[in-house]
Amino acid sequence: MNGRERENMNYAIGIDLGGTNVKAGAVDKKGKILFKTSLPTEAEKGYEHVVSQIEQAIEIVIEKKGKPNGIGVGAPGVVDFKTGEVKSPPNLPGWERVNLKKILEKKFKLRAVIENDANAAAIGEYIYGAGGKTGNFIMVTLGTGVGGGIFFGGKLFRGETGGAGEIGHITINYRGRQCNCGSYGCIEAYVGNSRIVADTKKKIKIAENSVLLELLDGDLSLLTPKIIFDAAKLGDEFSREVIAQIGEMLGAALASAINLLDISTVIIGGGVSGFGKFLFEPLRASVKNRVLAPLRPRVKILRSKLGNDAGLKGAASLVYYKE
Amino acid sequence: MNGRERENMNYAIGIDLGGTNVKAGAVDKKGKILFKTSLPTEAEKGYEHVVSQIEQAIEIVIEKKGKPNGIGVGAPGVVDFKTGEVKSPPNLPGWERVNLKKILEKKFKLRAVIENDANAAAIGEYIYGAGGKTGNFIMVTLGTGVGGGIFFGGKLFRGETGGAGEIGHITINYRGRQCNCGSYGCIEAYVGNSRIVADTKKKIKIAENSVLLELLDGDLSLLTPKIIFDAAKLGDEFSREVIAQIGEMLGAALASAINLLDISTVIIGGGVSGFGKFLFEPLRASVKNRVLAPLRPRVKILRSKLGNDAGLKGAASLVYYKE
Repeated sequence: MNGRERENMNYAIGIDLGGTNVKAGAVDKKGKILFKTSLPTEAEKGYEHVVSQIEQAIEIVIEKKGKPNGIGVGAPGVVDFKTGEVKSPPNLPGWERVNLKKILEKKFKLRAVIENDANAAAIGEYIYGAGGKTGNFIMVTLGTGVGGGIFFGGKLFRGETGGAGEIGHITINYRGRQCNCGSYGCIEAYVGNSRIVADTKKKIKIAENSVLLELLDGDLSLLTPKIIFDAAKLGDEFSREVIAQIGEMLGAALASAINLLDISTVIIGGGVSGFGKFLFEPLRASVKNRVLAPLRPRVKILRSKLGNDAGLKGAASLVYYKE
Repeated sequence: MNGRERENMNYAIGIDLGGTNVKAGAVDKKGKILFKTSLPTEAEKGYEHVVSQIEQAIEIVIEKKGKPNGIGVGAPGVVDFKTGEVKSPPNLPGWERVNLKKILEKKFKLRAVIENDANAAAIGEYIYGAGGKTGNFIMVTLGTGVGGGIFFGGKLFRGETGGAGEIGHITINYRGRQCNCGSYGCIEAYVGNSRIVADTKKKIKIAENSVLLELLDGDLSLLTPKIIFDAAKLGDEFSREVIAQIGEMLGAALASAINLLDISTVIIGGGVSGFGKFLFEPLRASVKNRVLAPLRPRVKILRSKLGNDAGLKGAASLVYYKE
């Protein structure tokens, strides 16, 4: 790359800070990834090391693409979006309170915006994805946990302390199974990745003819949501039913949120959103059957358009989002 | 009352439009009721008659108290708050679409504000009641149905079409009993007045020693939520348990809303809120046990301060509420 190209680059750096990897990308205003790289987080070495990994990743991007418009970071756990402080993120031991915004702004003389990863996903969807059309949508991220964000009038609805959007902790069965949060019947306790795997393992013993068992070569410890999806695509009824039940339950939680908020567009991202029609058909049916009558013709359940790079794009979008 | 007092009156007219009665009141800026009256709605005579009852009630108030600052109307069902149009309210046959705002403004040369009664209750709580302190609260009205409203930053959160705040249609059990709305397990299907009465009737047969049976003189057709409360006050364990279960279930629905919105104050109004500590103790325990950890120390479940005249005060408050 020559100097002239560098100067003209109009892009943002997105940092997707995870427990395993620090992903970094150069993303332009339209959401195109111009360059990306990844370093190991090495969280066990403490926060100062993780910060230096982040800085190194940023340096690599700047070296390749020149000066960016700013730096956006999607971080796990609680983030004070005003101060840019990351508070005790899960999977990152030793981070009591780290003001990542200050550290990065001082080092790079660039504006840095830090958000928790669920909010970054919602903002990414607004800036680059399916949420920009109306500015009113509920974002849901299906992964280890079930995250979310509420957009209304083109703004992230943050609530009193920035914690709004906890779709995962809407109960669908008030005397149901206990959730990691301590409550009962939260949707996350049914459709979080590890619960999907654990539930499927329990049920599979009675599904002797399932293709799933073949795909696993009989080793249940290899089970992942992805393999359930693969079996569903191969026509496996058992796996399709597993996914359909996830759709039904998720639909119940979403209907509660839609009724409460009168926001009729939902965007689903995260790994399990890759279940495709096996998830979306029963999910849409469940929502339509459950929302109040005036909402039924308006409800739209969309899949995120940001794909595998949603984390990077969400982080980069923070640079372009104006509150 | 002499002429001078009349001229100096600084008050709003509130109209609480119900299926049985049109209640009208003169309410001052502090929420004090200066005068009130009531006319039969006589809904079966059609909308023109009901409108003339409303007009007559307003005339009575003006005759007594002089020219008001404006007129506020709380109407059942769907109201377009921008145009002031009341759309097909339940219990008021023949009202396809009636623009009550236009009719009243033309007749009285005064500003008129029309809202649905759940929104009016929330606005009343903000202007006159327990919601004014923070401007962030979830209003819940317990009656035949379970209504609600969301206040954030001193504004009613209306959603895309003005329908936000449907607390009653948050599900607590996605495979539970069917609700009038068609969905399953909505909190309204468990704690709406008629469901409370019907459920209690079913259970009472096994509660042979309940004071409730004495209070009813054995005639179950006389059962009302009020009598369940009376029995609870007299120490009846069966009735206390009925109310405690309502608290537990309502707490589950509210925890979902609190988690989603990050709004930590809830104000409970409507008839069943009169169950007092028998409701509020289990309700508070249920909410505290269910909301996410960072919310626990902040959560406040308050009883509406507007009392029996909440409908009138909510309607009058519309005149003083600025969006």
